[in-house]
Amino acid sequence: MAISTTTKRIYNFSAGPATLPLPVLEEAQRDLMALPGAGASVLEISHRSPTFDKIIGDAEADLRHLLNIPDNYVVLFLQGGATLQFSMVPVNLMRGRPADYVKCGTWSKKAMDEAKKEGEARVVWDGSADKFNRMPEASEIKVNADAAYLHVTSNETIEGVEYHTDPHLPGATVVCDASSDFLSRPMDVSRYGLIYAGAQKNVGPAGAVIVIMRKDLLEGTPAKLHTMLDYKVMADNKSLYNTPPVFTIYMVGLVLRWLRTEVGGLPGMLKKNQEKANLLYSAIDRSGGFYKGHAQPQSRSLMNVTFRLPSEELEKKFVKEAETRHMDGLKGHRSVGGIRASIYNAFPYEGVEALVELMDEFHQKNS
Amino acid sequence: MAISTTTKRIYNFSAGPATLPLPVLEEAQRDLMALPGAGASVLEISHRSPTFDKIIGDAEADLRHLLNIPDNYVVLFLQGGATLQFSMVPVNLMRGRPADYVKCGTWSKKAMDEAKKEGEARVVWDGSADKFNRMPEASEIKVNADAAYLHVTSNETIEGVEYHTDPHLPGATVVCDASSDFLSRPMDVSRYGLIYAGAQKNVGPAGAVIVIMRKDLLEGTPAKLHTMLDYKVMADNKSLYNTPPVFTIYMVGLVLRWLRTEVGGLPGMLKKNQEKANLLYSAIDRSGGFYKGHAQPQSRSLMNVTFRLPSEELEKKFVKEAETRHMDGLKGHRSVGGIRASIYNAFPYEGVEALVELMDEFHQKNS
Repeated sequence: MAISTTTKRIYNFSAGPATLPLPVLEEAQRDLMALPGAGASVLEISHRSPTFDKIIGDAEADLRHLLNIPDNYVVLFLQGGATLQFSMVPVNLMRGRPADYVKCGTWSKKAMDEAKKEGEARVVWDGSADKFNRMPEASEIKVNADAAYLHVTSNETIEGVEYHTDPHLPGATVVCDASSDFLSRPMDVSRYGLIYAGAQKNVGPAGAVIVIMRKDLLEGTPAKLHTMLDYKVMADNKSLYNTPPVFTIYMVGLVLRWLRTEVGGLPGMLKKNQEKANLLYSAIDRSGGFYKGHAQPQSRSLMNVTFRLPSEELEKKFVKEAETRHMDGLKGHRSVGGIRASIYNAFPYEGVEALVELMDEFHQKNS
Repeated sequence: MAISTTTKRIYNFSAGPATLPLPVLEEAQRDLMALPGAGASVLEISHRSPTFDKIIGDAEADLRHLLNIPDNYVVLFLQGGATLQFSMVPVNLMRGRPADYVKCGTWSKKAMDEAKKEGEARVVWDGSADKFNRMPEASEIKVNADAAYLHVTSNETIEGVEYHTDPHLPGATVVCDASSDFLSRPMDVSRYGLIYAGAQKNVGPAGAVIVIMRKDLLEGTPAKLHTMLDYKVMADNKSLYNTPPVFTIYMVGLVLRWLRTEVGGLPGMLKKNQEKANLLYSAIDRSGGFYKGHAQPQSRSLMNVTFRLPSEELEKKFVKEAETRHMDGLKGHRSVGGIRASIYNAFPYEGVEALVELMDEFHQKNS
C-alpha cells in the first residue's frame, strides 16, 4: 500500500528527545500498521509474544556486540528515565554505606539529591567553583574504601562537559550516568559496576532507560524493595516483570542495528562525532572571542556544544536568525543561558555545516 | 511523499498491549517522519517545545471532556505502568495509617503486595474462595474509618470480572486501578480519590500510565519521597519534571480524540462494547455448557471474556484453529488457563463475529 506522508524536516539541535536516524524513522513508518509477519502494529503486539521476544533479544544482542559487554553483566530495559535511576541506584546499592559522587554539573547534582534521601552522599570532586567547565582527572578523585559506589556522569548535557575516556578507578564500584553520550564512542564496560542511560538522546525516543549492571551487584539488594525499584526482580524477569514500553524498545533496537550495520559500530560513530564537533569548535575558536566556549578544551563535549555570544541580546538574535534558516533547539538551558547545539549520533554533518555558516556570517555582521 | 507499507492485519485478542483504532495508526504513520508544522518526528521533538505543550494540553482537555473530570482533580501522565502505581499509592497516601483492599483477582492481589511493603494492608472483601468469579456489591465492602484509602480494581484482566457501576462508598477515599476498562464507559470521577490506568489496553501503546487525583490528596504527602514516586512533584511540574514518554502521550492523545470525535464519547463507546460483549457471551450461553464462562453474569467483563472448554486438549485445539483463521492472543493467562478474548474499545465488531462463528462451528464438530 502507498500512503502520502509529511516529510519537511528541519535541523533539530534539541538536547533530548533528539534527532533519530532517517533510515530508522523510515522503517518504523513503513511497518507502523503491521509488522511483517506479525499481523499487528508493534504498537499493539503483546510483550509476551514471540515477535517481541525477538525484538528485545536482538536489541540486547546488538548492544552487547557494540559495547563488547562481558558475560558477567546483565542488560535491562526499564522505564522512568535516568531520573528514576537516580533513586534506584542508591536504593539498591547503598545498603547502609555512604556513596561518593563526582559533582560535575547539573545532572550529577540531581543524582546526588536523590541519594541523600537514602543515606550519606559525599562529594569527592566539585566543579562548581569553575561553573562546571571541566571534568576531573582520575587522579583528582578520592576513592574511599568505605563507599558503596562512586557515581560519575560521563557527559553533562547542560554545561557541555564530557569525559573522553573511561575513568580508571580501581577499588571503586563506578556507577555511570551515561545518558547523554551513551554509544557515542566505544566504552570499556568492565571499568564500571553499573551504567545507565536514558534512551532519548542517542538511542531512541523518550520512554526507556538502559541499565548495564555487573551481576554480583544484584546479590544482597535490600529485602522488601518496591518491585519497580528492584534491579533483581527486573533482571530475574529479563525486563518483563510488567509491561515494558514495547514500541520504544523496538525503536531502540532499530537504532542499535543502524549503529552496527550502517555506521561501522562505535569506532565509526566516534569518528563521525569527532568530525562534527571539530567543525563546530573550530568555528568558536577562530572567532577571536566573539563566540566563547564554556568548556575547557580537554573536557569539551562532542554531544552538547555550549557557548556564549558577547551579549544576551545577540544570543536571542542568533537563535531567531537560526530559526529562519530551519535550525531549532539552539537556546541554552534556562539555568545557564547562552547557546547549546546538541549534535548527537544521528545529527547530520550537514546540519553542523549550516550552523557554522550562520556563525561565520552572524559574527561578521554583528562585530 | 508516497511510501509502500505493510498492512496485513489479524484479529488481535491480546490482553494488552492491544489493538489500537485504525484511524489512529494511520495518522501516526502519515506523520511519523515529520509532524506537520514541527519539522521533526514526534519521536524527536523536545518535551519543552510548544508543539508538545499542545499535544499534552489537548490530551488532558479531551480526557477532562470525556470523563467530565471536576476541576478539583489533577491529571498526570506518568511512566512505570500500573505496577509503579501499586507502590506510589501507598507511598504517598498511607501516611502511617492502614489501607483497605478489595481482593477481587490477580491484579488487586499484586497491588496489595506492594502496599504491604509500606504498612498495613487489610483485605475488606475476598473473592478467592470463588476463584474470583464476581465483584462484590458495595454493601458487602466494609468501610473502615481509620483507613487511609480503599483500593478497588474496576476490571480484573485475568479473571474477566468487572464492576459496571462506580462503587458508592461514602466516607472512603476510593483508589481505583482502572487499567483494563478505563474509558470503556462513562465514569463518575467524583466517587474516587484517585484513578490510575496503564495506557496499553484502551488508551494507547505501552509506556504511559494516567493518574486522575483529587487535589486535596496532594497536600501532606511525605517529605523526602524519591522524586519519581512523588505525586506532588509530578503535579507541580504538570507531568514534565523529567522527560516524559513523548510519543506514547501523543498516541494517547490521538486515541482520546478518536473517542471524542469518531465514537461519540464514552456513552457511544459503552454501547459498542456492550454489543461486542453481548454477541460473545450469547455464544457461550447458547452452547449448553460446552463453553463455560468463568464470571458470574452480573460481573461479566465487557473487556476480557474468559471461558473454558470441556478439556485442555480442546482448548489447545481451539486456539490453534483460531490462529489458522487469523485470530491471535486467545490463550488464557498462564495462571488460570482456558480461553480469554480481550475485546477492548478498539477491537472491531467483525473480529467478535469471526470468533463466534468459529465457536459455533468448533462446538458442532467437537461434541
